[in-house]
Amino acid sequence: MEQRISLITLGVRDKARAAAFYDALGWQRAPGHEGVIAYDLLGQTLGLFELEELAKDIGVPVETLGHGGLTLAHNLRSRAEVEDLLSRAEAAGATILKPAQEVFWGGYHGYFADPEGHVWEIAHNPLSPLRAGDGAFRWQGYPED
Amino acid sequence: MEQRISLITLGVRDKARAAAFYDALGWQRAPGHEGVIAYDLLGQTLGLFELEELAKDIGVPVETLGHGGLTLAHNLRSRAEVEDLLSRAEAAGATILKPAQEVFWGGYHGYFADPEGHVWEIAHNPLSPLRAGDGAFRWQGYPED
Repeated sequence: MEQRISLITLGVRDKARAAAFYDALGWQRAPGHEGVIAYDLLGQTLGLFELEELAKDIGVPVETLGHGGLTLAHNLRSRAEVEDLLSRAEAAGATILKPAQEVFWGGYHGYFADPEGHVWEIAHNPLSPLRAGDGAFRWQGYPED
Repeated sequence: MEQRISLITLGVRDKARAAAFYDALGWQRAPGHEGVIAYDLLGQTLGLFELEELAKDIGVPVETLGHGGLTLAHNLRSRAEVEDLLSRAEAAGATILKPAQEVFWGGYHGYFADPEGHVWEIAHNPLSPLRAGDGAFRWQGYPED
């Protein structure tokens, strides 16, 4: 199994509301197929799909699908960017779970839940600098210019 | 907000078991920090972290964290590869939720739950060919060679 994830599909109860949230953060939808609202990321796509339909597609009762046994992290280049994005997310309808603050491992982060409850961590991690240009992440970081 | 996700963190109750599962599928761990077991993907990292610790880090009761309101998809280049990977996942400890089968949109897929219940879709989508070489995915696909 190659080390890559093609699609992250968020199950949502209100697709229009969920899409309005990501649109408000400045993401551009990919054109194409009906049914899924898709945003192309770096080498993968994030899709919004009705939770009931997702459960049907998997073949499990919708009640068995929770909303957050994992988190999606978006890392930024400074503390100020973390604070700015958390504010913008809240203005767009997110619930702040943890305001921006220093973390024991040397970083700075906060968490929000999107309008459907999916949990995002917004972080600045000085130990793992992002790749110049596209902002790609890897565990031990990219060399700084 | 740039269109990228830096980290996907799976909350797990048994980190050694979860890591053994991804190791068994052939993934290589990134060296580094204690605490999180990390696998570098394409421009992002997947991390395994204790569910209790993840809940503490977010600042929510662990009971509020479910296990699958979203899915992670791994797309492959043929139907045979889908069947092969589902078999290997099952042998490594996954629960098959949906055996490999044709899908109405023209693809071929199946679902498994990893040992912690996180839901993976394994798919061949002829409408969205993967990028040659690294297998990157985007919604409308990459031109075939």
